[in-house]
Amino acid sequence: MPKKKNLSEWFTQVCLKTELADYAPVRGCMVIRPAGFALWEKIRDFLDQEFKKLGVKNAYFPIFIPESFLLKEKEHIEGFAPQCAWVEKGGDEELEERLALRPTSEAIICSMFAKWVMSYRDLPVLINQWANVVRWEKTTRLFLRTTEFLWQEGHTLHRTEEEAEEFALKILEVYNRLFNEVLAIPVLSGKKPESEKFAGAKTTYTLEALMPDGQALQCATSHNLGQNFSRAFGIRFLDFDNQEKFPFGTSWGVSTRVIGALVMTHGDDQGLILPPRVCGTKVVIVPILTKETRLNENLLVKGREISENLGKKGISSHFDERTEFSPGWKFNEWEMRGVPLRIEIGERELKNKEITLVERTKGKRETIKEGELDKILSILEKIQDHLFQCAKHFLEERTTQATTLEEFKRMLYERPGFIKVNWCGELSCETQIKEVTKTTPRLLPLDFSQSTGRCINCLKEARFVVYYARAY
Amino acid sequence: MPKKKNLSEWFTQVCLKTELADYAPVRGCMVIRPAGFALWEKIRDFLDQEFKKLGVKNAYFPIFIPESFLLKEKEHIEGFAPQCAWVEKGGDEELEERLALRPTSEAIICSMFAKWVMSYRDLPVLINQWANVVRWEKTTRLFLRTTEFLWQEGHTLHRTEEEAEEFALKILEVYNRLFNEVLAIPVLSGKKPESEKFAGAKTTYTLEALMPDGQALQCATSHNLGQNFSRAFGIRFLDFDNQEKFPFGTSWGVSTRVIGALVMTHGDDQGLILPPRVCGTKVVIVPILTKETRLNENLLVKGREISENLGKKGISSHFDERTEFSPGWKFNEWEMRGVPLRIEIGERELKNKEITLVERTKGKRETIKEGELDKILSILEKIQDHLFQCAKHFLEERTTQATTLEEFKRMLYERPGFIKVNWCGELSCETQIKEVTKTTPRLLPLDFSQSTGRCINCLKEARFVVYYARAY
Repeated sequence: MPKKKNLSEWFTQVCLKTELADYAPVRGCMVIRPAGFALWEKIRDFLDQEFKKLGVKNAYFPIFIPESFLLKEKEHIEGFAPQCAWVEKGGDEELEERLALRPTSEAIICSMFAKWVMSYRDLPVLINQWANVVRWEKTTRLFLRTTEFLWQEGHTLHRTEEEAEEFALKILEVYNRLFNEVLAIPVLSGKKPESEKFAGAKTTYTLEALMPDGQALQCATSHNLGQNFSRAFGIRFLDFDNQEKFPFGTSWGVSTRVIGALVMTHGDDQGLILPPRVCGTKVVIVPILTKETRLNENLLVKGREISENLGKKGISSHFDERTEFSPGWKFNEWEMRGVPLRIEIGERELKNKEITLVERTKGKRETIKEGELDKILSILEKIQDHLFQCAKHFLEERTTQATTLEEFKRMLYERPGFIKVNWCGELSCETQIKEVTKTTPRLLPLDFSQSTGRCINCLKEARFVVYYARAY
Repeated sequence: MPKKKNLSEWFTQVCLKTELADYAPVRGCMVIRPAGFALWEKIRDFLDQEFKKLGVKNAYFPIFIPESFLLKEKEHIEGFAPQCAWVEKGGDEELEERLALRPTSEAIICSMFAKWVMSYRDLPVLINQWANVVRWEKTTRLFLRTTEFLWQEGHTLHRTEEEAEEFALKILEVYNRLFNEVLAIPVLSGKKPESEKFAGAKTTYTLEALMPDGQALQCATSHNLGQNFSRAFGIRFLDFDNQEKFPFGTSWGVSTRVIGALVMTHGDDQGLILPPRVCGTKVVIVPILTKETRLNENLLVKGREISENLGKKGISSHFDERTEFSPGWKFNEWEMRGVPLRIEIGERELKNKEITLVERTKGKRETIKEGELDKILSILEKIQDHLFQCAKHFLEERTTQATTLEEFKRMLYERPGFIKVNWCGELSCETQIKEVTKTTPRLLPLDFSQSTGRCINCLKEARFVVYYARAY
């Protein structure tokens, strides 16, 4: 499967062949198979733990949102109505009001917040839910864009604007750590321009990764909702000063889409490559059973012993004892499935009390003593770091600055990636840049380093730096 | 809130006041609030771990089931069609085939199994999903019966009938342990009569608890599906002997309904009582701050220290430092919320290096030395056991045998509960017993002790023992 030749086809084949996912017999829907779901469990466990450290609690709200609720926040309904699936009939009963399947849950959650929040003592409200969402998409792709997907959506309310802003950024930092530390995917972090904000948000913060074809992939967003939803849903609290006020909200989410980013970022022509920290089975142990030694009891005993010893050190491994497949067949199989490290044990290793290690990433072979299993921990960490550095190198190499639209287009053609430009801040310029380059503005970097140059389009004094890219 | 006077009203008030749940603004739907969801997380964690020990893996299948799929298994569609919610429109598009929101997922999962299973080497398939399901119910109640609820549903395929049967019973045993060991809810374990089986199953195993009003509550089911679904969906595998065969299936589930059983079984007039093993905060620490000592720094320091020391012993606790509420107010609050053990520390305790313990269940007070925190572990275990024994005593007391229908009706009136009867096995008798007594047959006990008596209805020789009850 050549990754460079046709990334899209490579991606689909890897997802299907490694059994991460399969097409469901419903338009635009997928099945997340156990190998794929195990990745989601790792992502979920990391985030859930981090959210809880911030005081966030899990809850569950209905999947059904009455149409009238969606209509309460004007921008929100405009953004989501075209993508809603509608239930108009339950059992034999025609419903009085049709119900949307949640495309996101601000509307239903804020209607409950209005009931629960009375005083400043009830704030902050810090709630998250792990749920399925439905967005009726025209074109779909495994993981990256499906009619139904899984995500977490956090929804909070705060007494002050500053606190809400701070919380939205705290969450962005949790997401940032997920990508950097767990998934080994470097991301750009920034703010969406007005035109690309979440429908109903005051500010949308985003993390964007760069896929191998130079297209950006939005990986996570965290929204400062200001008072938009609390006004729309009548959420009021009595403050210290005995005044009734509207609290300030945030919402934020990460979805199963990131599994797509993981596959695309690290995989190669052999198949998947999984960073150790997101991988259930970090080590596969393959006994070198030749035709003559298929029943070599000593190798089987040794394999099980190594697997057990790794377990004691907290390294999950799988000992592939199957006799119906050759060692070579197993090597290919586990390489395709992306297990980061392979242990080989044969007659020679047995005799010398050694094991041979083979890294998935670089194919590097190394022999260590049986008693040195501890070394594997640091090797796994090195693999994790190596994957991150490779992706980081690519991101940096593909992030370039353009000062004219001609240069922009040439760069995009020669080395597609993020193109950094100066921008005056006018929507008309933004629109023109988009149209001429067929890209979208992905983000304004968070440090807001005031641009000192001129707008790439109108040549007037620039106020912002913007990263453009083609995007998934 | 008097529990005995009106159980139904008591139950609703406890769920709402302790913030386990709230009514959603969608007919028949509820919101599971953080306090309620924390209970579900404990249940989920226990089950998920036990399933994984059996080799079960998690996956995720779409919520949408095309109508034609539901139609493939005749009994299945008859059982579920009247309860389905239907999506007929997505975005602006009228769908060619309407989609049911899953009331259960056999149909969609078996359609995928047909694609994945080829040979005996692919068996067994052991899959579970944690998901929301939708059943359009006419009358609904918090937790016990809602239009949408959360559950896990396991779906497996096996090479032989014996293996499937064995697996269905293994899962029943996992469920049994959840109820006995975690939730402290004693259950009767047995087989559903033919008339009460899951739509499409060969055998349905069930666990039934008895609520304080003497009504049975079905808590968990595990189905041996035989070859019904594999035939309906064309799941075939090539066996050892080179013959194409249909595998044998099971499916099994537990839902958020059990939180309702938990509330009803243990609660009292003061509110919730949570068994320690299902409770996030097992101990609440209340400083006895009098009006004079509201700012007693020593008490606050001590409280935090105790909480930290409990944490080191793996006992999660909450130190209620709030100064705006009196100790008495806090006692009531935490009793209502069901925290099993309270620690009080006041001036006297501080001086004597002691702490006072108060049990939620019996109000028993005890003073121990600060250095004896270990004792709390065994006290919590005793509370857990006490709750189980109380419920078990009730279940046994309310399980009685009747030999005539007159006696049956009298018992049901005097001491509603499970009524054990002998039955000839004829559907006509079953129907008559149901109609005359206004109960349903809940289960046939698993030991199948052949009845030696006569059928309670026709007086012919009995073949089975059946437990009848009114049920939720």
